[in-house]
Amino acid sequence: MRLSQFHLRTSKETPADAEVISHKLMLKAGMIRKLAAGLYTWSPLGLRVLRKVERVVREEMDAAGAIELLMPSVQPRELWEETGRWEKFGGQLLKIRDRKEAEYCYGPTAEEVITDFARNELASYKQLPVNFYQIQTKFRDEIRPRFGVMRAREFLMKDAYSFHVTDEDLVREYRNMHDAYSRVFTRLGLKFRAVQADSGAIGGDASQEFHVLADSGEDAIAFSDGSAYAANLEAAEAVSPGDRPAPTEALRKVDTPTQKTCEDVAALLGIALQRTVKSVALMGDAIDGADPGGQFVLALVRGDHVVNEIKLAKLAGLADYRLATEAEIAQHLGSEPGFLGPVAPARPIRVVADRSVAAMADFVVGANASGYHLAGVNWGRDLPEPAVVADIRNVVEGDRSPDGQGTLGIARGIEVGHVFQLGRKYAEAMKCTVLDETGKATIPAMGCYGIGVSRIVAAAIEQNHDDAGIAWPDAMAPWLAVVCVINPKNDPAVAEAAQTLYRELNAAGIETALDDRGQRPGAMFADMELIGIPHRVVVSERGLGAGTFEYRHRRASEAESLDRNALFARLGAGGHG
Amino acid sequence: MRLSQFHLRTSKETPADAEVISHKLMLKAGMIRKLAAGLYTWSPLGLRVLRKVERVVREEMDAAGAIELLMPSVQPRELWEETGRWEKFGGQLLKIRDRKEAEYCYGPTAEEVITDFARNELASYKQLPVNFYQIQTKFRDEIRPRFGVMRAREFLMKDAYSFHVTDEDLVREYRNMHDAYSRVFTRLGLKFRAVQADSGAIGGDASQEFHVLADSGEDAIAFSDGSAYAANLEAAEAVSPGDRPAPTEALRKVDTPTQKTCEDVAALLGIALQRTVKSVALMGDAIDGADPGGQFVLALVRGDHVVNEIKLAKLAGLADYRLATEAEIAQHLGSEPGFLGPVAPARPIRVVADRSVAAMADFVVGANASGYHLAGVNWGRDLPEPAVVADIRNVVEGDRSPDGQGTLGIARGIEVGHVFQLGRKYAEAMKCTVLDETGKATIPAMGCYGIGVSRIVAAAIEQNHDDAGIAWPDAMAPWLAVVCVINPKNDPAVAEAAQTLYRELNAAGIETALDDRGQRPGAMFADMELIGIPHRVVVSERGLGAGTFEYRHRRASEAESLDRNALFARLGAGGHG
Repeated sequence: MRLSQFHLRTSKETPADAEVISHKLMLKAGMIRKLAAGLYTWSPLGLRVLRKVERVVREEMDAAGAIELLMPSVQPRELWEETGRWEKFGGQLLKIRDRKEAEYCYGPTAEEVITDFARNELASYKQLPVNFYQIQTKFRDEIRPRFGVMRAREFLMKDAYSFHVTDEDLVREYRNMHDAYSRVFTRLGLKFRAVQADSGAIGGDASQEFHVLADSGEDAIAFSDGSAYAANLEAAEAVSPGDRPAPTEALRKVDTPTQKTCEDVAALLGIALQRTVKSVALMGDAIDGADPGGQFVLALVRGDHVVNEIKLAKLAGLADYRLATEAEIAQHLGSEPGFLGPVAPARPIRVVADRSVAAMADFVVGANASGYHLAGVNWGRDLPEPAVVADIRNVVEGDRSPDGQGTLGIARGIEVGHVFQLGRKYAEAMKCTVLDETGKATIPAMGCYGIGVSRIVAAAIEQNHDDAGIAWPDAMAPWLAVVCVINPKNDPAVAEAAQTLYRELNAAGIETALDDRGQRPGAMFADMELIGIPHRVVVSERGLGAGTFEYRHRRASEAESLDRNALFARLGAGGHG
Repeated sequence: MRLSQFHLRTSKETPADAEVISHKLMLKAGMIRKLAAGLYTWSPLGLRVLRKVERVVREEMDAAGAIELLMPSVQPRELWEETGRWEKFGGQLLKIRDRKEAEYCYGPTAEEVITDFARNELASYKQLPVNFYQIQTKFRDEIRPRFGVMRAREFLMKDAYSFHVTDEDLVREYRNMHDAYSRVFTRLGLKFRAVQADSGAIGGDASQEFHVLADSGEDAIAFSDGSAYAANLEAAEAVSPGDRPAPTEALRKVDTPTQKTCEDVAALLGIALQRTVKSVALMGDAIDGADPGGQFVLALVRGDHVVNEIKLAKLAGLADYRLATEAEIAQHLGSEPGFLGPVAPARPIRVVADRSVAAMADFVVGANASGYHLAGVNWGRDLPEPAVVADIRNVVEGDRSPDGQGTLGIARGIEVGHVFQLGRKYAEAMKCTVLDETGKATIPAMGCYGIGVSRIVAAAIEQNHDDAGIAWPDAMAPWLAVVCVINPKNDPAVAEAAQTLYRELNAAGIETALDDRGQRPGAMFADMELIGIPHRVVVSERGLGAGTFEYRHRRASEAESLDRNALFARLGAGGHG
């Protein structure tokens, strides 16, 4: 592409309303333009990148045996009523009424449509397994669209849906998709992690999220330095820290007149925060006919840990727990908040201790008396063993990996893909059956697999940028290389040499742009750095005289002089993303 | 592609609700499935064809210098208010309200969005000319969606929009697009015509439609057998038939007691219909202060011709004409309808004669008296020369072509493309300006250019089918060739030979499917004919023994035995659509 024949429109100004770097850089580079809240036009430059991502996704889905089709973006209400999601999906579902007052939505996902397709198309186990996918525009009416295409309302998504006679076959395809996704992100040149995830609103049996790692990511990910283990911070298991040491201190009451937090108490006593225990007072689920007092729970985590509400709610009797009121706390513990603890409560209480707390000795807790804490507390001696020991906290850096290999680090990530084992939920609700080998109607198990194609573009920028702009991985760059011409109008020999090089590079399979817009070198280089072209070659009078080209990789600090052969070798080597 | 790994689902039954052959065949072949009124899922088979069309369109648009981008499908009401089309566009505009009660539509076209993009992106004449295009899903809320994807509500369209400083440059790009479209349809292997068209609701200066010719087409097209001239039947000019002959008959009143139509009168008199003249009584536009009688017009066309209302309305004083009432006819002509004519009216009237009528001698008209006609009528002698002579009829087969080359035939066509010179209408309404060479803000001229990508698939079938099913042109076929295996399970040598051939053909660049589904030959051949694969190769035990393959072109009546070299030569020759 000759850039004089292309539409490139960069900007020096940093857009005021862009909060994240990818949004800023996509606007500055002129990749996207806002049409309305959460609606963006992909400029010719932006679309080139989007199509690169789309192509890699398509190739890997095809290679993995999935079959592409294309469903309508507008979906009838009737199908969504069959699964109960017309109401349940919530405000993100953009509802539409046509001229005949029939109701539709702009599809945010397509479980209903594909299951309807499947119940008409799939009759026999012989047609299974099958995995249908599409790369199609979706719409989610985000209440607060922001971050550019990172959380746009209209976006491009690859969604795939597989159908299986047996659960085992679903698991096989789920792994197949996991591997295909890994190849997609590897080919795109992105640092990513596949993480265990709660399946969220879509529901189902097992799921994993694919995250592009970036400091600005909205999700925290715990990952092992010794294995492939990774999980959403809130889903990662905090394992037992080992055996409890023997007591070495006597129980004693310490004066903490205004110290209500673990941090303040540790500072006052001059001890590590890890020696303190935080007490969180909860009211558990109501139990018919039982003493309401039996609902009072004191949850204990180490002073430096954070309670994980999802894990807590999975414990017996805590599915619908809430925080206790001050009155309930006073009634059960005889104290005000800030000085609570499990030792000698006013009334019998249920103690739920995190695994780390259960393994502590000589710890510090509130004394259930205003202005006092207890130090040198030990299980079994100063209070009964906890009624429940469980994992009720978020993991932290340095925790042992739950798979026993390595220790955990915490990184931030941007979710760009998701693989689910849906099970039979949708097929059952929509009466989708196939005949099995014995001729009996059976409900197929389903998997679903999504990739946020447009989101990947933004996520890649969050991971790959510097002060000068975007630094694309080769596979996502609008062009792999650019030939910049210095002063083409005044020097026909330079212009001609540049055009020749441009043609030869493209002929050699290296997708190359020619910057023949006639800008001054400084502005031209700044543009090419901003839009992130990986390889830059400058053709100048001086270089021509010496028989060399000035080459610079987008991430290199210096340019180097290369002759023609060295240049082609360099670009050929880096030319396959 | 091995068809055992693909999703193919043909049907023997003819769908009851499909009215046109393309809709029937697309359903029978399993290319599309209906989701709701006017909404279709493209099955894997159908999508392969759709993508072929999309690719050819994209390649030719790129080659013509247009630049691809991607606009949102959801468009804000505000932009449509700027051009007044929020109301004017009518019921086809699918209006949407989001969760915040903001109003949008699902874009049926994108003049507003691209003009908004342009007014932000284009600042200087140096950025012009530029032609932006997208291949994107559109929605038109058809009141009666039908004919499958031929008139679906959601459809895939290529829409392009160009911007120019001068009208001359717009005309240049308009021709460029015309040529690109011709290349698209030629490459797709379709018989088509570019026809002059009225620009319809979008408005503008000049436009042409591209029609795929098919007997079932909804539009009639007049085309020359001696040149590239083609026009919509109603837009085609009917030229003067030549000089008027001298009178040879005397005027006489003839008895036509019940004969009120030209056909009946000609039959009674035993003369050619071409000798009669039809009189149509009209009331022209009201003229302030003038005698209302001056509005009465008698329009004359030859008995075998049809009045063209669009042409009539272009004449002075007839912009808003209507048919005259019986009372008005009686007042001006002194007669009842069926016996009307221009000779000796009761009051002065205005006669508008079609060119053919003005060139007639010795013709037959109504006598303005019930039960009588006049024969041997001649201009100048029996009545004054007509006040207006103009083209006011539809052309018919055999008319001379308006460009003077050849004679006209009439064909039927399906509109699949449209090129418009929009002029400055949208840019003006939306205050889109660029600075010209003198630094003055100027409103750019615009062109717009559409191709109905999904519609082409249906139109191609209307043109290319037989009793057995679809007969794709090479360039649109889901696969160019198919290797059919006879009895693969019982004969491993045959199965292996088929797989080898399948791999070799693909390696030679001939996109080939392998029908390894294990069906019986009859069912397999019927499927491959139904889905329209151009080249079929059968691998059987008998052929293997003789060192030959059975080859049959989809349009050939007989199969032939070819050895490997002859087969590759045959497919290679036909392999580039």
